[in-house]
Amino acid sequence: MADEVILLDVWASPFGMRVRIALREKGIKFDWRAEDLSNKSPLLLKMNPVTKQIPVLIHNGKPVCESLIIVQYIDEVWKDRTPLLPSDPYERAHARFWGDYVDKKIYSTARQVCTTKGEPKEAAKKELIQCFKTLEGELGDKAYFGGKTFGLVDIALIPFYGWFHSLETIGNLNMEAEFPKLVAWGKRCLEKESVSQTLPDQLKVHDFLLGIRKKLGIE
Amino acid sequence: MADEVILLDVWASPFGMRVRIALREKGIKFDWRAEDLSNKSPLLLKMNPVTKQIPVLIHNGKPVCESLIIVQYIDEVWKDRTPLLPSDPYERAHARFWGDYVDKKIYSTARQVCTTKGEPKEAAKKELIQCFKTLEGELGDKAYFGGKTFGLVDIALIPFYGWFHSLETIGNLNMEAEFPKLVAWGKRCLEKESVSQTLPDQLKVHDFLLGIRKKLGIE
Repeated sequence: MADEVILLDVWASPFGMRVRIALREKGIKFDWRAEDLSNKSPLLLKMNPVTKQIPVLIHNGKPVCESLIIVQYIDEVWKDRTPLLPSDPYERAHARFWGDYVDKKIYSTARQVCTTKGEPKEAAKKELIQCFKTLEGELGDKAYFGGKTFGLVDIALIPFYGWFHSLETIGNLNMEAEFPKLVAWGKRCLEKESVSQTLPDQLKVHDFLLGIRKKLGIE
Repeated sequence: MADEVILLDVWASPFGMRVRIALREKGIKFDWRAEDLSNKSPLLLKMNPVTKQIPVLIHNGKPVCESLIIVQYIDEVWKDRTPLLPSDPYERAHARFWGDYVDKKIYSTARQVCTTKGEPKEAAKKELIQCFKTLEGELGDKAYFGGKTFGLVDIALIPFYGWFHSLETIGNLNMEAEFPKLVAWGKRCLEKESVSQTLPDQLKVHDFLLGIRKKLGIE
């Protein structure tokens, strides 16, 4: 029996993008279903009754939730194809640590830079610069966070490369000058079909974030 | 060469307790080193420069950070002894989901119940009741969260069983009446040597939390 793989998702979600990239890295066909977060589908509420959040991967009728847990699940189920986590336990723990760091730090801080103003925006900007510096240090001269191969940490972070234009224009950050290694890494990741097929254009993301600012009455 | 296992920790840390329990479940001897969080050791700052938090497991000189990542590392390295995660990828993802739920929800909320007063305390209490209800539903009639065997989710949650007396006296919660399955589960876990050797007496935890309240000027 062929695998049935459904992804409940929203196009602009960096968390959903992680799952799409992981599935594409593995060459897994999936049925992508757009959710309307203001009117969640009965399927989403049934499949993720605890947090009710996307993305949810439904594999042969069974749900898996939380983006980085889904990526690990995909890696474990389709383990014969392109590995996303290293095989060595120490390196796996290292990758999980940085995946967790991205998870805890980047989204909330970058979102605050892009959707607030005044003091909260400046505080978030300061924190985000520190986080990107830390990530730039961790990347160092490696091609990817995992070294020579694209993996979990790259998948966790790359959706936020789509926000770089907005961080420059809304946040007044000069990404290329301040984080040259991260920018080069982002471009390198985009050469992968799994990433280029998934990441929306930075200008489309920017319009989306401007829409949020407008709704919040910030513009 | 025998493994050198060092744990940088604080006695009252629920996160440190998770690692101690996992090591004891596996029968691994370790060198437990108490950290003073107001004056962190050069070793802690060197081994976890990113978050500077305990617990840090140092295995043959290499650091692993973040409690649930450490527990998974321990399970992967010493895989021939008492498994802490299921072998099936779907069940592993399920365990990771609930471990993550406990991680995100319980500590911050329970701490707020025990160390604030007035409106923030009441709001946290309401949220904590909802979380415990969700966990009680997930536990159901199983012996442990993992089913018949003690595992990752049990390890994530059991340190907070040590807070139950404080949640009763400070939070005015009747834990036994409201969450009978969780209380029975906590007692069941305490029958395991790994847990009973690790968890401090609930009254000792209570004194510790009262000390925090006093420092914050709440009493």
